[in-house]
Amino acid sequence: MTLIYEIRRNPLLAFVPAVLVIHAVAPSTHTLLFVLSVLAIVPLAATLSRATEAVAARTGDAVGGLLNATLGNLTELVIALAALRAGQYMLVKASIAGAIVTNSLFMLGASFLLGGLRHHIQEFNRSGARLQASLLFLATIALLVPSAVGDADAVSADRFTTQVSVGLAGLLMLAYALGLWFSLGTHRDVFVSAAPHGDDSTAWPLGLALGTLAVVTLLVALVSEVFVASAQQAADTFGMTPAFVGFIVVALVGAAAEMASAFAGARKNRLDLSVSIALGSAVQIALFVAPVLVLLSHVMGPRPMDLQFWPGAVVMMLIAALTASLVTSSGRSAWFVGVLVLMVYLIFAMTLYLLPPRVT
Amino acid sequence: MTLIYEIRRNPLLAFVPAVLVIHAVAPSTHTLLFVLSVLAIVPLAATLSRATEAVAARTGDAVGGLLNATLGNLTELVIALAALRAGQYMLVKASIAGAIVTNSLFMLGASFLLGGLRHHIQEFNRSGARLQASLLFLATIALLVPSAVGDADAVSADRFTTQVSVGLAGLLMLAYALGLWFSLGTHRDVFVSAAPHGDDSTAWPLGLALGTLAVVTLLVALVSEVFVASAQQAADTFGMTPAFVGFIVVALVGAAAEMASAFAGARKNRLDLSVSIALGSAVQIALFVAPVLVLLSHVMGPRPMDLQFWPGAVVMMLIAALTASLVTSSGRSAWFVGVLVLMVYLIFAMTLYLLPPRVT
Amino acid sequence: MTLIYEIRRNPLLAFVPAVLVIHAVAPSTHTLLFVLSVLAIVPLAATLSRATEAVAARTGDAVGGLLNATLGNLTELVIALAALRAGQYMLVKASIAGAIVTNSLFMLGASFLLGGLRHHIQEFNRSGARLQASLLFLATIALLVPSAVGDADAVSADRFTTQVSVGLAGLLMLAYALGLWFSLGTHRDVFVSAAPHGDDSTAWPLGLALGTLAVVTLLVALVSEVFVASAQQAADTFGMTPAFVGFIVVALVGAAAEMASAFAGARKNRLDLSVSIALGSAVQIALFVAPVLVLLSHVMGPRPMDLQFWPGAVVMMLIAALTASLVTSSGRSAWFVGVLVLMVYLIFAMTLYLLPPRVT
Repeated sequence: MTLIYEIRRNPLLAFVPAVLVIHAVAPSTHTLLFVLSVLAIVPLAATLSRATEAVAARTGDAVGGLLNATLGNLTELVIALAALRAGQYMLVKASIAGAIVTNSLFMLGASFLLGGLRHHIQEFNRSGARLQASLLFLATIALLVPSAVGDADAVSADRFTTQVSVGLAGLLMLAYALGLWFSLGTHRDVFVSAAPHGDDSTAWPLGLALGTLAVVTLLVALVSEVFVASAQQAADTFGMTPAFVGFIVVALVGAAAEMASAFAGARKNRLDLSVSIALGSAVQIALFVAPVLVLLSHVMGPRPMDLQFWPGAVVMMLIAALTASLVTSSGRSAWFVGVLVLMVYLIFAMTLYLLPPRVT
Repeated sequence: MTLIYEIRRNPLLAFVPAVLVIHAVAPSTHTLLFVLSVLAIVPLAATLSRATEAVAARTGDAVGGLLNATLGNLTELVIALAALRAGQYMLVKASIAGAIVTNSLFMLGASFLLGGLRHHIQEFNRSGARLQASLLFLATIALLVPSAVGDADAVSADRFTTQVSVGLAGLLMLAYALGLWFSLGTHRDVFVSAAPHGDDSTAWPLGLALGTLAVVTLLVALVSEVFVASAQQAADTFGMTPAFVGFIVVALVGAAAEMASAFAGARKNRLDLSVSIALGSAVQIALFVAPVLVLLSHVMGPRPMDLQFWPGAVVMMLIAALTASLVTSSGRSAWFVGVLVLMVYLIFAMTLYLLPPRVT
Repeated sequence: MTLIYEIRRNPLLAFVPAVLVIHAVAPSTHTLLFVLSVLAIVPLAATLSRATEAVAARTGDAVGGLLNATLGNLTELVIALAALRAGQYMLVKASIAGAIVTNSLFMLGASFLLGGLRHHIQEFNRSGARLQASLLFLATIALLVPSAVGDADAVSADRFTTQVSVGLAGLLMLAYALGLWFSLGTHRDVFVSAAPHGDDSTAWPLGLALGTLAVVTLLVALVSEVFVASAQQAADTFGMTPAFVGFIVVALVGAAAEMASAFAGARKNRLDLSVSIALGSAVQIALFVAPVLVLLSHVMGPRPMDLQFWPGAVVMMLIAALTASLVTSSGRSAWFVGVLVLMVYLIFAMTLYLLPPRVT
């Protein structure tokens, strides 16, 4: 019943079965599939946003934000696993780096801008933001060290990089687990929300909200896979470089669901929720999804995947972490802060768009 | 009448016509012209400082600081345009990087030190400082990315660098314009001064103050051009490297006018004015003068100028932006903060002084 | 009498004469000497900690912390001087870089963790921490610039590096002296302790405390020399790389004495003392021990030593300074902050442990 209501409210959801059927019938119509899958992900993201808000309304911003980031990143994990099985490690790494940069710059910056256009000055709990920014900073240091310290000769360097990557994967997952224990366990009191809660009209029962969350996330994953399969060929048609597609296009569409929630939170002056989704999502990809992929590559992949990124990607992740850390340290925001963060993202996007194909 | 009074008060102003006459009569007496032009710029800077303070006293610290930075950087723009027409792009870039580093390290550090020698602890509006430091940080990221991301083969890299530079120039100017709209428009209330205003004895009428400001700025520009033309040969006589002359000597003399104002503000416990002049000037060169030069090089220069700097210059600008951001984040200062910032500058100056000529 | 009491309380002190005797009798039993010297340094460190706390109890946290760092780093200086005379500049530099990283990451992080396991939230005077972090940041910039700016051809680069190193040594020592004048002289009022003092049971007379401090420091120096002489061969036996021994093992054992004091302070909720010891010690090595070694190398060494470090070491020192600066800027701590800082240290330690021997 709610499902029917949801479809009526959101007629674009009709693109979801359309994409899946056309993909099964005519899998080589790449440009069509690309456009249809984007059109299908947008309404799914909106539904997901409403379901997440309904759950968040019953569990508090921190848990709601965590839940959102977890389910939202399922998309990235499913996409990356498909690429992993095919041994396309460059694509896996580009989508990891791109997701970190997109979440911590575009999603955060656009939240600040959209919220700031409605509210003069917005405040948020900086303890939560500081924790997430610190974890993100730790992850970028972890990804920086193998390239900065070890640039030895070919043979031993290969073994060194594989060993270091497994060790880093373990340390990052440990840090992530301890961070959850800290923020949800021993120091829960520090991470309460700073902003007043608006009374949400969405009063779904918890069971329905959770069920919708699960089903819609699955649909997002299915459609996203079609999207990724068609993205590269469609990109060639539109004249985009592979670096731009991996970093920007895949990351933007992959995070569409979380963005809808983050932007809605920002406009309702619940910036805690926005910051928690944006940075929490970047942190989860860096400290959970990436390590899991490294470990799974030893089981599923044709050969072990390491954590050594293209230097330009390391620089971008480092700048993204530093920028997120600087702009959230005061716990206050205005529209121009959003502009600054988006500018950094635009500089990256433009550089990748113009980059000659051979570099990455 | 005021002009006569000004000349009596400031007899060194007599060097101004001297420099212009000797330059016209005997343009090859480089060492003499170098010494005379420095002696002429100092009193012009002092007069400019008084005129700017008179205007600032009537318009508030923020507008006064902006005015000062705008007119002060006219010098740098005029110098750079002359070099641009001659196709001396290395000199243009060295003077841009040197002006950013000198303003955000030497001018800021010396203001903190001079103010701190008189006042135990000084406070200033950190919202303004944070905005300027953020803009400076954005500019250094913009200048870092082309070198960090794109180091491909010769032919396509050239085209890539030119395209990226035009794009960056556009983004930086947009950020600058939005920053002005933010600080003078929508969020003017946030940027009010924190320090108490001293009652200035300079009570010039606004028209006279503005007129003096314009005339003196023009004279500074004329003398500065003589200074630059003679600087390189005179530097050889004194045994300085080209890198040292471009980065340090040109930048120090070019910013003399703004320094007089910034130091006077610091000693009068109006550190808002000092920080606003120092960082505002660095920001304006990075986000306004440099982009304008890139765009004008497509019209005036023998070939397009790009924004790819020598790696050492990028590192120095990045450290300068980071240092300025760290020391202004608390909104408080004491003499030792000035010492620290000046130490960073001294490290750069010493390294450039000792650098073998071939490196840059 | 107190000495006898101290020996009874601390029976491991019997290893001190054992190490010195066996070193004189059988100097080639490296693995035995390595184990014995570690066992001897631990109780010496404990006694030193008690004596220092007795002095600190009478002089205030700042002076006590300074005293501790000075005497603790005597060990590092003595070790480095022995290596300097032998011309082993790689070992000197590795121990300098390792001491900076170990003090500012391991000692600080473990203090935060140990203190945080007992106290929910701990506060400390952030003025002191900020001063130390700034000085450390300055030192890493100084060590970064020669490698970042000057990478010219062999002959002139050598002379350039030697000249720059002497200049940097002078600037760093000047900054250190001015920093002491600032914190103990003109702005003493800013650096008072934030945490309440526990009443210490250690009420030694000042003369006895100072005498014990001196004697025990000397014994630490003697035993440390045996430790270093045996460390490399013992490390080979245990399968460690030279980089790991120089950076991690030497630095951890060399700083054992200060760590005992820092950890005791953290558990007694006197985090001011811990932060002052950890960062003060790193600062003293960077701004005092390293410059002294450069200057002494012109007198004592076979050839002048420069300040150009292996790039990986520079990156680690820079990240350590940045991390210390970020985590101390708020003046508050909880156990997870300690975990984060220790994670950065673990990433470095693991990378160095796995590094193929040829790289450093």
